[in-house]
Amino acid sequence: MKILGLDSSGLVAGAAVVEDDVLVAEYTVNYKKTHSQTLLPMVDELRKMTELDLSSLDAIAIASGPGSFTGLRIGAATAKGMGLALEKPLVEVPTLEGLAYNLWGTDNLICPLMDARRNQVYTGLYEFVRTAEGLSLKTVAVQQTADIGEILEQINLLGRQVIFLGDGVRVYEENIWGRTRVPWIFAPPSCNRQRASSIAALGALYYAQGKTVPAAAHRPEYLRKSQAEREAEAKKRAE
Amino acid sequence: MKILGLDSSGLVAGAAVVEDDVLVAEYTVNYKKTHSQTLLPMVDELRKMTELDLSSLDAIAIASGPGSFTGLRIGAATAKGMGLALEKPLVEVPTLEGLAYNLWGTDNLICPLMDARRNQVYTGLYEFVRTAEGLSLKTVAVQQTADIGEILEQINLLGRQVIFLGDGVRVYEENIWGRTRVPWIFAPPSCNRQRASSIAALGALYYAQGKTVPAAAHRPEYLRKSQAEREAEAKKRAE
Repeated sequence: MKILGLDSSGLVAGAAVVEDDVLVAEYTVNYKKTHSQTLLPMVDELRKMTELDLSSLDAIAIASGPGSFTGLRIGAATAKGMGLALEKPLVEVPTLEGLAYNLWGTDNLICPLMDARRNQVYTGLYEFVRTAEGLSLKTVAVQQTADIGEILEQINLLGRQVIFLGDGVRVYEENIWGRTRVPWIFAPPSCNRQRASSIAALGALYYAQGKTVPAAAHRPEYLRKSQAEREAEAKKRAE
Repeated sequence: MKILGLDSSGLVAGAAVVEDDVLVAEYTVNYKKTHSQTLLPMVDELRKMTELDLSSLDAIAIASGPGSFTGLRIGAATAKGMGLALEKPLVEVPTLEGLAYNLWGTDNLICPLMDARRNQVYTGLYEFVRTAEGLSLKTVAVQQTADIGEILEQINLLGRQVIFLGDGVRVYEENIWGRTRVPWIFAPPSCNRQRASSIAALGALYYAQGKTVPAAAHRPEYLRKSQAEREAEAKKRAE
């Protein structure tokens, strides 16, 4: 099974190819260039470097949101375009699950935090549980938009040691120090941001379970309204 | 602090740049091309994509062995060449530690296995322990050349659940199934092979501890003699 994974949900642009039990290639860039400039050239770079025949892919796994609206749209457009052209299905991997999968193998509670501005985070809670197949990622709290205080309160109630990761860690570090009453750790740079290899590896598991969508049917999961929509609604209410 | 990490110790060629708590870029290729064709162009690709001024690096972290002799030499030559030209120190990260660091955050015992041919593996045993700074990688059994049966016996004696990773897993899968008497798991494709980001992240920790060497002083750690050396010695003995 060969899966292309794409993630442009945050500041990171990432592309990765997983074939069976091996990561064939991965390219990750966390730099100020916009994803529209980087994502497709990165896929092309991987394609050339590994002499990848794109038609040999089984599916394209995409970090399906939440995240930056523009980032998600660029990712969706890229995945849909490739899926339509190659006649391959897409696998939608929730962004927060992808982040949690970076910490494969931990016994701690996992709390990815993505900065959603206005004192909010995109977050969720995850853990790995032992199953017949090895370890499976289990959702403890489904991905959500929350005030940072809300999610920290949920964590305090669970009472377990937690690992924080994601671009929200830096932004809300003071809240974490001040309000977390369980032992906690920050993930290191090698695994604290989006990784397309996690999207591809999780995508391969979902693909095997038949969880695919036709390329034309994919829509990003924004979890909340865009700024333009919010402003339009406020204007309407004001009228 | 900005660290370039390089790993060409096995089939994977990898380059990554870590700056403080962020992975700026990573490029990983696990494909049949030789590292002499891939490693430096990959570094150059990262440099261009992130507009990296190489002189802004603090150090170059290199997977220092064991591993493929040719791979280690290409990695060493690349790191030494860059270190000399840029007047930057190198940080030598033992290959097996780098692999273990892929599983940052696990409570299990970690056993990286690299195929060393002739029924042998390059291996070691590692765990993460809680310290004041978060989690630290601790060596339970130092990296070594071992028969696969020897390391599995060490693991059985420790009696703890273990995670296997590395290119030796596939090669010695039958031995693992037949001879491991503790619970065990195989790492998934997103983290079961060399990652330059792990070398860079560990390298940053070692750099902060002052564990550097001048570029001219770096030598790969082969852990055993090369085939040419063994054959020359056998010939001498025969005479």
